[in-house]
Amino acid sequence: MMKEDNMNEEKISEYARLAVEVGVNLQKGQTLMVCCPVENAFFARKIADCAYERGAKDVIVDWRDDYISRKHWLYADDSLFDRVYPWDADKRNTLAKEGAAYIFICGDDPENLKGVNGERIRRWETARGRDLKEFLDLETSNGFPWCVISAPVKSWADKVFPGEENSLEKLWEAVFAAVRINGDGTAPEKWKEHCKRLESLCEKLNGYNFKSLHYKNSLGTDLTVEMPENHLWLGGGDTARSGVRFVANMPTEEVFCAPLKTGVNGTLCASMPLAYNGNIIEGIRFTFKDGRITEVHADKGEGILKGAVDTDEGSHYLGEIALVPYDSPISNTGILFYETLFDENASCHFAFGQAYSASIKGGDYMSAEELLKAGINAESCTHTDFMVGSADLSIVGTTHDGEEITVFENGNFAI
Amino acid sequence: MMKEDNMNEEKISEYARLAVEVGVNLQKGQTLMVCCPVENAFFARKIADCAYERGAKDVIVDWRDDYISRKHWLYADDSLFDRVYPWDADKRNTLAKEGAAYIFICGDDPENLKGVNGERIRRWETARGRDLKEFLDLETSNGFPWCVISAPVKSWADKVFPGEENSLEKLWEAVFAAVRINGDGTAPEKWKEHCKRLESLCEKLNGYNFKSLHYKNSLGTDLTVEMPENHLWLGGGDTARSGVRFVANMPTEEVFCAPLKTGVNGTLCASMPLAYNGNIIEGIRFTFKDGRITEVHADKGEGILKGAVDTDEGSHYLGEIALVPYDSPISNTGILFYETLFDENASCHFAFGQAYSASIKGGDYMSAEELLKAGINAESCTHTDFMVGSADLSIVGTTHDGEEITVFENGNFAI
Repeated sequence: MMKEDNMNEEKISEYARLAVEVGVNLQKGQTLMVCCPVENAFFARKIADCAYERGAKDVIVDWRDDYISRKHWLYADDSLFDRVYPWDADKRNTLAKEGAAYIFICGDDPENLKGVNGERIRRWETARGRDLKEFLDLETSNGFPWCVISAPVKSWADKVFPGEENSLEKLWEAVFAAVRINGDGTAPEKWKEHCKRLESLCEKLNGYNFKSLHYKNSLGTDLTVEMPENHLWLGGGDTARSGVRFVANMPTEEVFCAPLKTGVNGTLCASMPLAYNGNIIEGIRFTFKDGRITEVHADKGEGILKGAVDTDEGSHYLGEIALVPYDSPISNTGILFYETLFDENASCHFAFGQAYSASIKGGDYMSAEELLKAGINAESCTHTDFMVGSADLSIVGTTHDGEEITVFENGNFAI
Repeated sequence: MMKEDNMNEEKISEYARLAVEVGVNLQKGQTLMVCCPVENAFFARKIADCAYERGAKDVIVDWRDDYISRKHWLYADDSLFDRVYPWDADKRNTLAKEGAAYIFICGDDPENLKGVNGERIRRWETARGRDLKEFLDLETSNGFPWCVISAPVKSWADKVFPGEENSLEKLWEAVFAAVRINGDGTAPEKWKEHCKRLESLCEKLNGYNFKSLHYKNSLGTDLTVEMPENHLWLGGGDTARSGVRFVANMPTEEVFCAPLKTGVNGTLCASMPLAYNGNIIEGIRFTFKDGRITEVHADKGEGILKGAVDTDEGSHYLGEIALVPYDSPISNTGILFYETLFDENASCHFAFGQAYSASIKGGDYMSAEELLKAGINAESCTHTDFMVGSADLSIVGTTHDGEEITVFENGNFAI
């Protein structure tokens, strides 16, 4: 549909340009890797156009297909879930080490892996974490510029707008709105301003240098999160090791940091369902003791969630804490996207698993050992976001002087 | 279009089953690799269904896209045309060594590389021949079961049926007819009979054990082709090293052999244009002396053709000689397909470059040196077919006793 419609053609072109120029900020002579579902080939083609116009060395597309993936998950030989094919690992790891830019286009059936053995998924996550370690470590420490964007497919659109004939068109429009695209070519400019706003919010939070944050709402969340010394709130753009600025998520409405790995205590209740590896998990509740998740509950998909938390030792601890006002542009659409890229930018969220090393001053240049010593969760092969924001969420920060500052009140920033 | 139409859905399913069951004859526990353009994902999905039903270990799809390929050929960094990415080479070579089945789905714009620097194409062919040597050697010596089939894309259909609105539908119907599919599920049976017919024709030709063949027609062909001792005419099915029978091309109407590498003399004129690596070459004429191509002429695309012949030393010699009656089912459609898989099965043809090692008795188990000693062209990284059949082609064979046998008269078998 999108190929035939001229107005949307302009938006698609603007979107591709946004991803290449602002998202990964592709430089002349740099290789670009694009992960894309086969249905959205027309979008990958636009990205390739932009990339070669900017002098890309090469554009390598890693295609995928929900249908064939599901068959693989259900019917492929069991031994295949304990390792990544060496050629696939070599490709990812080598390109990451060379500093190739990486655009991941989300757009999958949120329930594509429904009914797949959860143990298989857990084993695969472990194998992936081990075999793509170089790629994943470089990703979380900004070793190369990367950008996660989104392009709807029909199965996903039907989940978001069930029973609506023009669901795909509606979801595309929602995506365009969320990434500030209206087809007039001004999105790159708008994004520069937007990132500045997020960066000034980070400055304010970093100025407080909180010792801890206390989360509370009527869903049952009552959680104290200690912050490591030298923590840094981040948001908007990141800086790759090459010195190039990039924007890792589009949309992004969050400012984020990493908690003190061993300093999380209390109860944390999710406020939205989580689309995780082709499964939907609802009614999530975690209990924490000294940072470790000691109880895992979900009303639906509890087995899958427990498997995710059990991936490795590090996945039992939080790695990210992110603030998004309840009155955010994406939240205000009232749409539940069943896609973390959107849902996490409509809500305060946490992630269990690996922390982003830039959450500690100088962290991108620290070893895993140094990061652990600095107090953040730096040895997990997973990073799974889940949403906790609500209309009545309050967050009270305590500074090192013992001063209490209301950071969030009724779901929105109070600072 | 093909996804929506129920009648065609049945044909597509039958076609997928034919490729998996008869084409590569997939065995339980065997991996299947499928190369497919992204447009024809619906066909790859059907193939995956059939493969997993037969107990495939895994189905690995290698997707490609004409648009992004063309951009790569035109704009990617020049250094990339001298080597295959190591991970791509590793994937092909490893799967080939493991005996994975391989289905290549043709279906590309015949002029996709129009205007691309011919030297770039030649360098890439050389690099590919070197870096995929294990894969290519195992392919020509039946080290694994492989099958080349075809699924139309719009750009190709528009070349075959220019200006016709329903070109894609027409080309699909022509393809179905050529591979004996009408949607009633009987294609696998028909193929078994068809292969038997070709095999009995081979027996007859092998009985004559010709010393040489003399080709002549009004297009200017006047060529003597000596045959190696112990040559074998082949057609229909092949036997993979695992002992499993497979059919390497669908359609296939040919019986083929390899000539004595140094025993080809005279002039050979092509009777059809050749779609070669995204370029169309017309009016081909070669002169041979002691097997070597000494003159290369084309009315259109001569530079590309000369580059192809210059790929390596072996590409200056013939590697295949194939007989197809002028009154063959594909030829009788009157369609010029601009796709070797079809056009070579509508016409007697030759190939320059690598011979199939099974053309010599026991050849699949011989080294390159042994094959050369046996008299066939066994050291080229290319194999390029071109069509020479015409309505007035005559081929006269001479046996070792000096007896002359008319093999072809007026374009058709006379034996």
